[in-house]
Parts: sequence; C-alpha cells; structure tokens
Amino acid sequence: MPLFGRKKKEPEVVVAEPEAPQLPPPPPTDERGWRSMEDHRDYLLDQVHQLPAFGQQILDALDLSICEDIESDVDLPGFDNSAMDGYAVHFGDTLGAAEDAPVTLAVMGEIAAGDWSDEPLPPGTAIKIMTGAPIPPGADAVVPYEATDRGTEDVRVFAGAREGQHIRRRGEDVSAGDVMMRSGARVGARDVGLLAAIGVDKVMVRPRPRVVVLATGSELVEPGLALSNPAQLYDSNSYLLAAAARAEGAQVFRVGLVGDDAEAIKQAISDQLVRADLIITTGGVSQGDYDVVKAVMPELGLTDFCEVAMQPGKPQGFGLIGEDRVPMIMLPGNPVSAYISFEAFVRPVIRKMMGVEPLFRPQVRAIATHLLRSVPGKKQFARGLVTTDPAGRRSVTAVGGHGSHLVSSMARANALIVMDPDVDHVPAGSHVPVWMLDEVS
Amino acid sequence: MPLFGRKKKEPEVVVAEPEAPQLPPPPPTDERGWRSMEDHRDYLLDQVHQLPAFGQQILDALDLSICEDIESDVDLPGFDNSAMDGYAVHFGDTLGAAEDAPVTLAVMGEIAAGDWSDEPLPPGTAIKIMTGAPIPPGADAVVPYEATDRGTEDVRVFAGAREGQHIRRRGEDVSAGDVMMRSGARVGARDVGLLAAIGVDKVMVRPRPRVVVLATGSELVEPGLALSNPAQLYDSNSYLLAAAARAEGAQVFRVGLVGDDAEAIKQAISDQLVRADLIITTGGVSQGDYDVVKAVMPELGLTDFCEVAMQPGKPQGFGLIGEDRVPMIMLPGNPVSAYISFEAFVRPVIRKMMGVEPLFRPQVRAIATHLLRSVPGKKQFARGLVTTDPAGRRSVTAVGGHGSHLVSSMARANALIVMDPDVDHVPAGSHVPVWMLDEVS
Repeated sequence: MPLFGRKKKEPEVVVAEPEAPQLPPPPPTDERGWRSMEDHRDYLLDQVHQLPAFGQQILDALDLSICEDIESDVDLPGFDNSAMDGYAVHFGDTLGAAEDAPVTLAVMGEIAAGDWSDEPLPPGTAIKIMTGAPIPPGADAVVPYEATDRGTEDVRVFAGAREGQHIRRRGEDVSAGDVMMRSGARVGARDVGLLAAIGVDKVMVRPRPRVVVLATGSELVEPGLALSNPAQLYDSNSYLLAAAARAEGAQVFRVGLVGDDAEAIKQAISDQLVRADLIITTGGVSQGDYDVVKAVMPELGLTDFCEVAMQPGKPQGFGLIGEDRVPMIMLPGNPVSAYISFEAFVRPVIRKMMGVEPLFRPQVRAIATHLLRSVPGKKQFARGLVTTDPAGRRSVTAVGGHGSHLVSSMARANALIVMDPDVDHVPAGSHVPVWMLDEVS
Repeated sequence: MPLFGRKKKEPEVVVAEPEAPQLPPPPPTDERGWRSMEDHRDYLLDQVHQLPAFGQQILDALDLSICEDIESDVDLPGFDNSAMDGYAVHFGDTLGAAEDAPVTLAVMGEIAAGDWSDEPLPPGTAIKIMTGAPIPPGADAVVPYEATDRGTEDVRVFAGAREGQHIRRRGEDVSAGDVMMRSGARVGARDVGLLAAIGVDKVMVRPRPRVVVLATGSELVEPGLALSNPAQLYDSNSYLLAAAARAEGAQVFRVGLVGDDAEAIKQAISDQLVRADLIITTGGVSQGDYDVVKAVMPELGLTDFCEVAMQPGKPQGFGLIGEDRVPMIMLPGNPVSAYISFEAFVRPVIRKMMGVEPLFRPQVRAIATHLLRSVPGKKQFARGLVTTDPAGRRSVTAVGGHGSHLVSSMARANALIVMDPDVDHVPAGSHVPVWMLDEVS
C-alpha cells in the first residue's frame, strides 16, 4: 500500500464563529427599566473574585483575611512551669509548715526561664525557680518567695503547699492540634500574638486590592490650585473615594482628574489596567450629552450601564475592561451620589476581593428623633447622625438635606438612614434601619 | 573720685550644685506600696507630649489628628447651578404650559458644566443646560428634558416651571467662612472629601508616632525557628504589641528579641533612641533575680518602677531615656499582662502623641451572663466576649481563665471586663463595665 494511501482524510475543520464575549445577563428591571439596589450589587459581586492568597509575615498580615485553617503544632504552655518566683518542692515535704514551725529543705540550685533538665528533684529538697521556668520532674508545687526566708543553701518554708500550687500545666492554654484560626477570619492584633505564640511566622492571606481612582469632568480643578472661572469646582470625588477605599484596606492609586475628552479617558484607563485589581471612576454615566464615560468605555471592554431604584445613585456603570477583564465601577459624579454608591456597591466588592466578611454594612435599628420623609419607589439613603445611650440604644437624626451635592452634611454624618422603596415616611419615635459608617465590622 | 573707687563690689557668684534631673514625683501609693491604675496612667500621660504637627497631603492625613481649624474660603456650590439636564428659562415664560398647550421658546445655545458667561438670558428664550452648569443671569428655573421636546433651535415646554425649580443655590451647602473642621478632630474619609471640595490640598496634622518594640527574655525564640530545648517558648509579645500599636496608627519598628544580657539590652535600646518617639519593652520588670531591664535601665535615663493595683499587669516600668528623654514603657513579660498593660497605659500614650481623642477606651456597660469573681484590692481585667442584640444591648461572657499566660482566650475575646478594686463579684444578670476592644473610637 503506497504511503500516501495510508494518509487519513483530514477531518473538515469547522471554524465556529467565535461568540462575542459578553457580561452575564443583567438582573431583571421593573416597569421603569430600573434594577433594585440589591440586584445590582449582587450582579457586580458575581463578577468579581477573591484575590489569590499569598504568604505574608504575620505582622504584615494584620487586617487581612487568612486563607487557611491554622492548627497549633505545639502545646501552650509547652511544659509545666512556675507561675511565681519561688521554690519548686514536693508538696508533701511542706505539710504542717507554719510561721512558727517552718520546714527546712536543702536547696539544690536554681532554674531560670529557658533552662531545661531531666534530673528529678530528690525528696526532701527544694530548687529555686523563676516565673516561667520548667518544673523539674518529681516536684509538684511551687512555694513563692513570700512564704520562705529566700535561703540559698537551705530554705525555710513557712506555709504548707497544696499539690500543684502555682504550676501552669502543659497544654492548659492550647493543645497541639487545636485550631487557632479558621480560613476567612480577619487577622487582628491579638491573633498576631497568638500566631507568634504557637511559632507561626507566616500565613496565607489575601492581599490588599490595588484600587485605581479617577474622576472625570472638565469643570473639575485639583484642590490647592486656583479656579480659572467661577463655574469650575474642586474635585472632591477622587479624594473621597480614594480615602474610603484606603480606609477599607485597599492599596489606592489616586490618578486624579481626567477631562471630558473621550481619547484622554480611554488612554488614562488603558494606562492603569496593568496595576489595577479594580478601577473606580466618577462622572459621565448619566443621560446627559457629555456623559463620555458611558460613551467610550464599551470600546475598551464589556460594559453594563443601568439605572438603579435608589436615591441618590440612580445611574450606575460596570465593566470588565481590557484583555485581563479588570473590574471597573463607574459611579455618578455628584459627591453624595458617588459616596453612597461606594457604600452600596464598591465597598462590598473590595471586601469580596479581600475575602473579608461581612461584605455589607451591618444594618442596625435606630429610633428616628423626628419625622423622616422618603420618595416611594426608590431605596432612599439619607445622611444621619446616630447617638448611642449608655445601654447601647441608638437614636438617629437626619443631617443636611436630600441634595446629592451637600458634602458638608456627609462629613457630619456617621450613618446612612435606609428607607426601602415601599416606605414614604418614618414617624418620629419609630425604628428605622441604618448603616453605621464609622464602626469596624 | 578715682576711677577704681566707682568700681562696684562684684557680687559673689554662687555656683548652685546642679540638681540631678529626675522624674516628677510619683503618684501616692496605698499601704501595700501600690499605685492605682488610673494614677499610674495619668503619671505617664503627664510625661509624654503631642508630636509636633506637620503639613500633609489630605489623602495621607487620613486617620490623623488635624491641628488647625479649617475655614472654607469658598461657597459650596460656588455659583447657582442646575440640578438637572434641561433648559434654563425665565419661569414666567412657561406659565400655563401643558402637554396639550406647549410654550415654545427660542434656544440660545447651551451651557456645559465648567462653562461661564455673564451674558443674561433674554426674556422669551431658553438655553440648554447640563447638570452642574451655571445658571445664566436672569434665568430663574430649569425645565428638565422630560418636560420638553429636547429641541435645538426652538424648544417646546410641556409644563409650567416653578420659580427656582431645579436650581442649586450658591452657598446652600457651605458658606465662605464656615468652619469645616476643628483642631483636634480625626480626619476620616468623608472629611478628606470635604477638604478637597473646598479646595484644601494640605492640612496640618500630627504624625504617626514611631514606636519601637522589643521583647526581653533569654528563653524566647523567634517564631518560625525551632526550639532548641523544651523550656524555650516563642516570642509573642513583640508581635502582639507591634500589631496593637500599628492598629492604633503608629509607625512600628519591631526590633524583636534581646536576651537577658545587661549589655545587649543597653546597646539595643541605645541604638533605637534615634528613631523612636516611644519605646516599648516586655519582660524583666518584676522582682525576680533575672529582671534585668529593671536593673540596667536606670543607667540610661530617668526611670520609675512600681507596682500597680491591677491584675494582671502589676509590675510596671517607665523611663525617659537618653539625652532626648525618649519615653519608654516597660511592660511585664506575661503575654496577657503585656496586652492588658498596653490597653491600660500604652494605647492612651500613643493616642496622646497622635492628638487623638478619646485617649481611653470608652467604658460601656454589658450584662454579665454568669457570675464573675474578682480579687478584691486590685482592679481586675478579665477577657470577655460581648454580643450585642439588635437593639444594641450588650451581654458579656468571660472567656478563658484568669491566668496571665492564656493567649488563646485573649485572641477570642473582644472586650475587657473591668472590675474595680472594691468589687469581689458581679452576679449573673447585673451590669458590669467593659472596654470594647474592636470598635473604633
């Protein structure tokens, strides 16, 4: 059979038309075409991922989320040791000792913290022992200095010892095999101490997300510079969001201002992709003629622009940008809208990336000190000042008006008052849900 | 009269014996020679000072204490501007407009955010205006797109406008001269936004104190290394205290371990003086024969060693070390003693240096879930786990025993239960004071 006869017929190559990549189907909308705040938040959360864990020195793991269960390899204490400075003894040798009837024991030497010997303590003798030093084999009590004459050759003991007194037992704090931390826990200062105590110097944690913040808008001027006409204003959004992301633990790059020019925005975003786990922009996502972010970002990746049934913060944008599909959250440009959007959407995304629970601000109840009004059909977020009485009961007063441009009241607030779309008012004296802004969670 | 006759008798120069510098008189002690926790804390606080303020970029001022009152130089908004995308009009021209009886106005052009013109809007005309753009002189209302046909030459208006509708007034958020932040306030994320909004790029803040942390004890081994005999243990104190100081905002240098050798300790401390605003050590301050810190530190500066009526944490040391009198706090070596001493003494000192209020953990009340026992005559700190019900009421359960070596229960706790020296027990169901460890304050 000629060679070429063995050549198999090549299978016909079917070149499938590559499907254009796209975002997952968006959540449902209501009759106005709006999404609920919760649906939009969950849609974003589904499309961002926990950052891969890496090994970090325990001190630098502070505030990060641990990605492994930590079992102790050691007992704590690792050995029976003295809780006092004094003398290790056989307690039976001290029975009946009293102020006027001391027992005298020969002193065999001394044991300092860190010393180790397998030599048993002979009956009828004592050995000087420091706090934390190992109890020698055979000894079963420690007589503190105060109950002795502090003798060096012989020691006089003025009080009978109980069996086991002033001895810290091996493993009474931690036993080898005990789980010290669970995967997903956030490393606090006392955890760092515990990890060190069991000899752990490094742990696997999720890193701080690298968050790039840009503000768009040709009317914006960098703080510290002069305004060149009365219609300009200072960029506060990029500072506010950079600070808020940093306060959540992100590593923040505030790129600052880009104008309203399409090419400049595309260039600025493209330049940042390489160092960003998340990009946040403000401005340019509404229905206006100058909403250039909404206009140009589809050229750089997969995007989703929508309206959310919330106030403030209705126009929202999201994208997976560039080849690496870097998540990008495009917030409205009014400062209060931007900040409340950060709380509703960006903060949970940053916490998911960091592996930190809970993702959301705990929603707690406070008593309204006055009548609160809301616009039905939208989830309303009002700035509130919460005070807490000594028993922990919270009261809340709205600060500032409803305007999404009122930044001074935003700084004065310590909570967001949350009124669901079916609420049009909350009477004075009633409970209303609030998100506490200044509490650790 | 001869010249020399006018020579006055030289006053005899009294060379005063220079008084040896010393610490201020220590607080009073009780019949046991012990100080109260509060007296010792106040004694330390009196001898440390707020760090000098320096100018810092607002984003880097996050979490620091501001040292000036910040008055706004500008109004916010800085000019009357539109709250909507639409048309600026004279409201009187739209009176009676309705869906079936539109008013038609000539469109004079458009105003984008950042544009500025002094040209008044002629009566009977409209001008397209974007959100945030300045209202032209003469115009007194904005008709949103939705109430128009969005015309470019002429626009048909389908609803009468109210005077002032959709106009944000100059200064309605902030007026020039308003105080935005008071000296002593801590800069939060929303404050950073507010500072930027009024054009402030730098503020005077107190820096992060440089805190050096060392642990002494020749029985200690660095985590991650092998123990060379069973009586050694891992250093947890220096990690715990470094993490706790960092969590308070300090810039921490963990120097780590020094043995029990007098010369090594003196050298290590001397080496660190140049970069320290505060030095913290653990170990070597008790009555034991190996308490070398207590023995050698008087050679390097002014020192104060004492016993405090608290448990744990009785032996305490303080010093002003070296030529620059760098404050040094010498804590006991048991991990729980060290941590509770940090909470009682070091944390307030760090906060005073940073200019952050309140200096002390807020003492709140919680309901004891079980009988709590205390040793009368000492202020007792027990580790507690506080839970809060939806109304904010706190309950507390003690975790772990009283042993000052129990580090695992310390990590599990989120509060310290505080029992004053005159308390010997707290019945189940009664209120007991607690310091919350994981809340921002």
